[in-house]
Amino acid sequence: MTRTCLAIVLAAGDSTRMKSSMSKVLHPVGGRPMIAHVMASIAASGVSDVALVLGRDAEKVERAASIEGLAVESVLQTERLGTGHAVLMAKDAISRGYDEILVAYGDVPLITAAPLKAAREALAGGADVAVIGFHTQNPTGYGRLLVENGELIAIREEKDATEAERAVTWCNSGLMAIDGKKALDLLSRIGNQNAKGEYYLTDLVEIARSLGGKAVAVDAPESELTGCNNRAELAVIERLWQERRRHELMVSGVTMIAPETVFLSHDTVIGQDAFIEPNVVFGPGVTVEGGAVVHAFSHLEGAHVAAGAIVGPFARLRPGANLAEGSKVGNFCEVKKAEIGKGAKVNHLTYIGDAVVGADTNIGAGTITCNYDGVNKHETKIGAGAFIGSNSSLVAPVTIGDGALIASGSVITEDVPADALAFGRARQEMKPGRAAVIRERNLAIKAAKKAGK
Amino acid sequence: MTRTCLAIVLAAGDSTRMKSSMSKVLHPVGGRPMIAHVMASIAASGVSDVALVLGRDAEKVERAASIEGLAVESVLQTERLGTGHAVLMAKDAISRGYDEILVAYGDVPLITAAPLKAAREALAGGADVAVIGFHTQNPTGYGRLLVENGELIAIREEKDATEAERAVTWCNSGLMAIDGKKALDLLSRIGNQNAKGEYYLTDLVEIARSLGGKAVAVDAPESELTGCNNRAELAVIERLWQERRRHELMVSGVTMIAPETVFLSHDTVIGQDAFIEPNVVFGPGVTVEGGAVVHAFSHLEGAHVAAGAIVGPFARLRPGANLAEGSKVGNFCEVKKAEIGKGAKVNHLTYIGDAVVGADTNIGAGTITCNYDGVNKHETKIGAGAFIGSNSSLVAPVTIGDGALIASGSVITEDVPADALAFGRARQEMKPGRAAVIRERNLAIKAAKKAGK
Amino acid sequence: MTRTCLAIVLAAGDSTRMKSSMSKVLHPVGGRPMIAHVMASIAASGVSDVALVLGRDAEKVERAASIEGLAVESVLQTERLGTGHAVLMAKDAISRGYDEILVAYGDVPLITAAPLKAAREALAGGADVAVIGFHTQNPTGYGRLLVENGELIAIREEKDATEAERAVTWCNSGLMAIDGKKALDLLSRIGNQNAKGEYYLTDLVEIARSLGGKAVAVDAPESELTGCNNRAELAVIERLWQERRRHELMVSGVTMIAPETVFLSHDTVIGQDAFIEPNVVFGPGVTVEGGAVVHAFSHLEGAHVAAGAIVGPFARLRPGANLAEGSKVGNFCEVKKAEIGKGAKVNHLTYIGDAVVGADTNIGAGTITCNYDGVNKHETKIGAGAFIGSNSSLVAPVTIGDGALIASGSVITEDVPADALAFGRARQEMKPGRAAVIRERNLAIKAAKKAGK
Repeated sequence: MTRTCLAIVLAAGDSTRMKSSMSKVLHPVGGRPMIAHVMASIAASGVSDVALVLGRDAEKVERAASIEGLAVESVLQTERLGTGHAVLMAKDAISRGYDEILVAYGDVPLITAAPLKAAREALAGGADVAVIGFHTQNPTGYGRLLVENGELIAIREEKDATEAERAVTWCNSGLMAIDGKKALDLLSRIGNQNAKGEYYLTDLVEIARSLGGKAVAVDAPESELTGCNNRAELAVIERLWQERRRHELMVSGVTMIAPETVFLSHDTVIGQDAFIEPNVVFGPGVTVEGGAVVHAFSHLEGAHVAAGAIVGPFARLRPGANLAEGSKVGNFCEVKKAEIGKGAKVNHLTYIGDAVVGADTNIGAGTITCNYDGVNKHETKIGAGAFIGSNSSLVAPVTIGDGALIASGSVITEDVPADALAFGRARQEMKPGRAAVIRERNLAIKAAKKAGK
Repeated sequence: MTRTCLAIVLAAGDSTRMKSSMSKVLHPVGGRPMIAHVMASIAASGVSDVALVLGRDAEKVERAASIEGLAVESVLQTERLGTGHAVLMAKDAISRGYDEILVAYGDVPLITAAPLKAAREALAGGADVAVIGFHTQNPTGYGRLLVENGELIAIREEKDATEAERAVTWCNSGLMAIDGKKALDLLSRIGNQNAKGEYYLTDLVEIARSLGGKAVAVDAPESELTGCNNRAELAVIERLWQERRRHELMVSGVTMIAPETVFLSHDTVIGQDAFIEPNVVFGPGVTVEGGAVVHAFSHLEGAHVAAGAIVGPFARLRPGANLAEGSKVGNFCEVKKAEIGKGAKVNHLTYIGDAVVGADTNIGAGTITCNYDGVNKHETKIGAGAFIGSNSSLVAPVTIGDGALIASGSVITEDVPADALAFGRARQEMKPGRAAVIRERNLAIKAAKKAGK
Repeated sequence: MTRTCLAIVLAAGDSTRMKSSMSKVLHPVGGRPMIAHVMASIAASGVSDVALVLGRDAEKVERAASIEGLAVESVLQTERLGTGHAVLMAKDAISRGYDEILVAYGDVPLITAAPLKAAREALAGGADVAVIGFHTQNPTGYGRLLVENGELIAIREEKDATEAERAVTWCNSGLMAIDGKKALDLLSRIGNQNAKGEYYLTDLVEIARSLGGKAVAVDAPESELTGCNNRAELAVIERLWQERRRHELMVSGVTMIAPETVFLSHDTVIGQDAFIEPNVVFGPGVTVEGGAVVHAFSHLEGAHVAAGAIVGPFARLRPGANLAEGSKVGNFCEVKKAEIGKGAKVNHLTYIGDAVVGADTNIGAGTITCNYDGVNKHETKIGAGAFIGSNSSLVAPVTIGDGALIASGSVITEDVPADALAFGRARQEMKPGRAAVIRERNLAIKAAKKAGK
C-alpha cells in the first residue's frame, strides 16, 4: 500500500542579501530556476502533491515551479515568523490527512531524491520526525544533530551547545519528514519563546519526543544541502551542480579534456564517445550524439549535433541549428535555424540563418545568408554538392540548385539552377602607380593634421 | 591629533627567479603593476608620505608607483645587504621625525589597508614595533611569532626554533610598523653577525625589547601576505586577487555563473543585477551597468555597457565602445571607438570602428566600416532606424541618413540621404551548366597533379 | 658498466569502464596517447628495450607506443589472469637475461623517469624487488607498504590488514623493478590461490624474501601514480599533467594570468617573457617565442609565433601559420598555412589560407583569401607594404605586388602590380525615398502574415 505524501516547499524568502530584482529561487542553476530543481527532486522521490509557500514574486515562482507530474497548490506567506510558521501556511493541505509531510526549501536546490526517500522511509519505519542531516568539516553555525541509540534526541543550536556537542560534525539541514497524521498537532505546539520571537521547525524533534514519539536523522551529502543566501553562494551551487552533471557524463563515456571549463544546462544530452574540448558552453536544448567532436570556444543553444559532426573551434550554434552526420561548423561561424546536410562544411567566418544546406556542399569563407530585410525573415535553400564562393551574399528568399557554383564575392538575389555558375560582381580594374600616389597624399594629410594640432 | 606616518616600500629586488626582462614589481596583477597595489593600500590606510627603495628598473617602478594622494620620494639601493639595510636607505626621510614608520614590500601586493592600520594603531597604543603576522597551516620556512602575555617576544627563524616553537603557526610576514621617533636608533643597532652577513629587520623585536620597549604582533589573512618570487607565485597572487574582486562583485549583486572564468581588471565596474556568463575577460577601463548581460566568450576593454544592453557571445569591445540601453553586440563582432545607439543591433561578424550608429539601426551580418586608408582613420555616421544590408562595406568618411537602406553586398563610398535606398553591387549573371564543366576540369587538374607526384 | 634493463608495459586492459570504442591507453593526455607518455618516461629513465603486453586494439596501441629511441616488441595477452600472468607474457624477452626488469602500466601515464631510475638503482644496490610506492592521505583501497629496517617486508592488501597496518599511508603503485636474472624464477612462483584466482605481481615481495632475497620500496609523488579507469579519472590525469607543464613554463619565465585556463599540448614550446592571457588552447606543434603576447580566446595548432608578435584575442592559428616578428593576428581571424611578414597586420574577421603576406602589409577587416575552388587549393602572394581594403576577396592563385592598394569590397582575380591600385566593385547608385517605400511594403507583408495566422 503506497503511503501518501505532501511536500511543503518554502519559497517565500525576501532574498535581500541576493541584492536582486527578483526572488532568490528564480535565479538559475544549470539554466533552470533554482525552485524547479527542488520540484524535480521531489517528483523523483515519488511525491506528487506539493504545497508551495510563496512570498515575493509569487506568480513567477509558481510558474517556475510548475513541473510535469506535480500537483502544486500555492499559499501566500505574508508575515515572516520562522520556518515553523511558514510550514503552517500549508495548514489546509496538511489537514487533508497525508501519511507523510516532507519539508524542503526553494533555496536548497541541489537536494536529490535519495535523501528525501530516506526520510520518508524513516517515517514508514516508525519515526514521527526524520531530519535530513549532513556531515561537515566546518560545523560552525549549524545546529548539531544529537543522536543516542539511533534516535535523534535534539537539534542543538551552536549558541546553546556544550563543548562536547560543538565537536559533533553531523548537522541539521532544515529538511525533514513529519508523520502526516500528527503533523498539525506537532506543528501547533511550536512556540516562539526565543530571542528572535520566531517559530522554529527544529523544535519538532523535542516536541515529538516529549509526546513519546521518535525522531531520527538520515544522512545526505553536504554538497546537496548547500543553501543560497547571496550570489557568491549561488555560484558555489552552480559549480557543485556542474560538477555533478559533468561527472555523470564522463562516467557514461563522454571525454572532457577540462571538465571544469565545460558548462552544461539542465537538459544537455551528450552521447558516448563524444569528445569535448576545453571552454564549451551548452545553453538549453542541446543534443550531441556519440562520436561528435566539439572543439574549444564553442557556444551551443537549442542545437542538435549528429554523430561524426565537428563543431568549432569558435562555433556558435543557435536554436534550430541541426548538424547532420559528418558535417562541420567552425572558425567564427554562426548557424541559426538551419539544416546543415551530411558532410557539408561551414568552416570560416560565415552566417547561416533560416537555411537548408545540402549534403557535401561547401560554404566558402565569409558567406552570409541575408535572411532579414529589417522586418521579415526569409529562407535560403542550397542544394547538395554545391560550392558557394567566399564572401558571397545570398539574399533570401533564394534557392541554389544541386551542384551549382557561386563565384567568390557575388551577391545572389535570384535562384540559381542546378549545375549553373552564377556570379554577381564587378570586373577588376587597375590604375598602375596610383597606390603610390594615394599613399603620398594620405601621408601628406596626416602630416598636415599633425602640424595643425 | 593625527599621527604622522612614513611608509617605506622595498622594491629593489633583483627578481632573478622571475626570469624576466623587467623588475618583479612591475608585473601586473588585475592589469595593474604589483607595486601600484601596494601603494593604493598604503594610501587607503591613511598614509600619504612614502619612501620608495628602488633597484632594478628604478624609473619605471617609480612611475608605476605614482598614485594619486601619495607623495613618493625615491631612494636607490645599490647594495643588497638585507631588509634592515634596505629600510635604512630611507634614513633621510626617517630623520624628518615621523610618529610612525610603516614597512611594506613591492612584491607583497595583496595587503589591504586593514592590517596596515592595525599595526599603526598598535604603535599609538604604546608599542615600539608592531609586526604583521599571519596564521598558516604550513608554517615551514617562515619565522614564528613567539607571543607571551600579549607581547611579541621574538621572531624565531625556523632553523633556530625548538620543536615547540616550530609547532607555532603564527608567522612573520615581514611587514611592520616602527615607532618613528625611535626608528633610526633601533635600525642602527641591527647587526649582521649571521650566516649570510645580512642586516635583518626582524631583529628589531629583540632590540626594542632589550631597550625596555614593547613589541606586538597584529594579524592579517594569509592570502594578503602572499609574496611573489617566480611566475607560478605571480599566478597564485593573480588568482587570489581575482577571487577577492569576484566575491566583492557577487555579494554586491552581480551574477556570475562561473566566477572562476571571469577575469577582472583593477578598475572594472559592474552594476547590480548584471548577469555575466562564463569566460568573460574584462581589460582595463570597463563599466557595465546594472541589468546588462555579458554572454560567454566576450572580451571587453575601455568600454561602457548600459543597462539592458546585451554583449556576446563572442563579442570584442575595444576602447571607446559605448553601448546604449538595449543595444546588442555579439557573435564575432568587434566594436572600437563607436557609439551604438539605443536598441541598435550589431549581431554577426561585423567590424564597427570610429563610428556612430543611431538608435534602432540594424547592422547586417558581415558589415565592415572601412575606417582606415592605411594612413589615416575616418568616421562613419549612421542615423537612426537605418538598415545596413549584410556584407556591406561602408567606406569612411561616410554618412548614412536616418531610415536609409543599404542593399546587401554594397560598397558605399558616398553619403546616403535619409530614407534613401543605396546599392553598390553588380547584377547577377548565370551560365547554365557551367558549374559542372568547371568541376570536371578541376577534378582533372587534381588527378593530373596526383599522377605527376 | 651499464646494467641492461627490459621494461614490460602492461597495456592489455579491456577498459570497459571507459565506455569507449577504443582502448583506454589510446586516450590522449596533453594531446598524446596515454601509452606514449609511459614510453617516453621509460626512455628518459635510460631503458631502451620494451616488451609491450597488448590486448584490445593491439595494432593501434603498438603504433601509439612507438617512440624514438625505444626498441619495442609486442606480445599479446589473450587471457586476463592478473598482473603476474600479464608480465609472464613477456617470458621470451625476459629469458634473454637482462640485469633488470621494470614493470610499468599503460594507464598510469604521469610517471616520470625519476622513480623508475630510483627503482633501478635499488636493484643495483642489492635488492631483488623494488616497488614504487606513494604517500597518500586517503590510502583506502590500496595495498600498504610494510617496511622494517629499510626493507619492504610485505604489501598488505586492505582486506587482510590489521588496524595498525591500515593506518600506514605509504601505498603500492603496482610499478616495480625486479632482478632480471631471478625474474623468471620469482614470477613462476606466483600462485593463484586467492579469491579471484588471479596471479598477483605483488606476491613477488614475499616470494623474494622467502628465498632469502631483499625487497625495498622507493617513493614517487602520488600525482605521478594516478591511474585511469573511467573518463572522470582521465580528466583528473589531464589536469595533473596540465598543471605540471604550466608550472614548468611559468618558472621558466612565461607569464600566465590564469594558468588553469591555458591548455598545453605535449610539445608546446613557449619562450621566456611570453605573456599568455586567460583562455588559450595550444594544440600540437606550437612554438611561441619569448616576448610574444597571446591574448585571450586564442586557439593555436601547428603554428609558430615569433618574438614581439601579438596573437588574439579571438585568433585561430592553424597548421602552417607562421607569424614573423611584430606581426599581429587577432579579432576573429583565421590563418592557415601562411607566412605573415614582419609587422604585418591581420586584425579583423579575416581568413588567410595558403598565402604569403609581406612585411608591414595591412590586411583590412573581412578580407578573404579564396584559396579553394571546391577541388584544389591555390596560393595568394601579397607583397610588402601593401594595403588590402576591407571586405576584399582575393581569388587564388593571385599575386599582389609590393605597395599595391586594393579598394574595399573588391574581388581580385588578376595579379596586381607593385604600387598599383586595383578595384573590382560596382559603382554606388541611389533611389531617394525608396527605403521608406520598401519598409512600408515589408511591414504590410508582416501584418498580412500575422493576420493570416
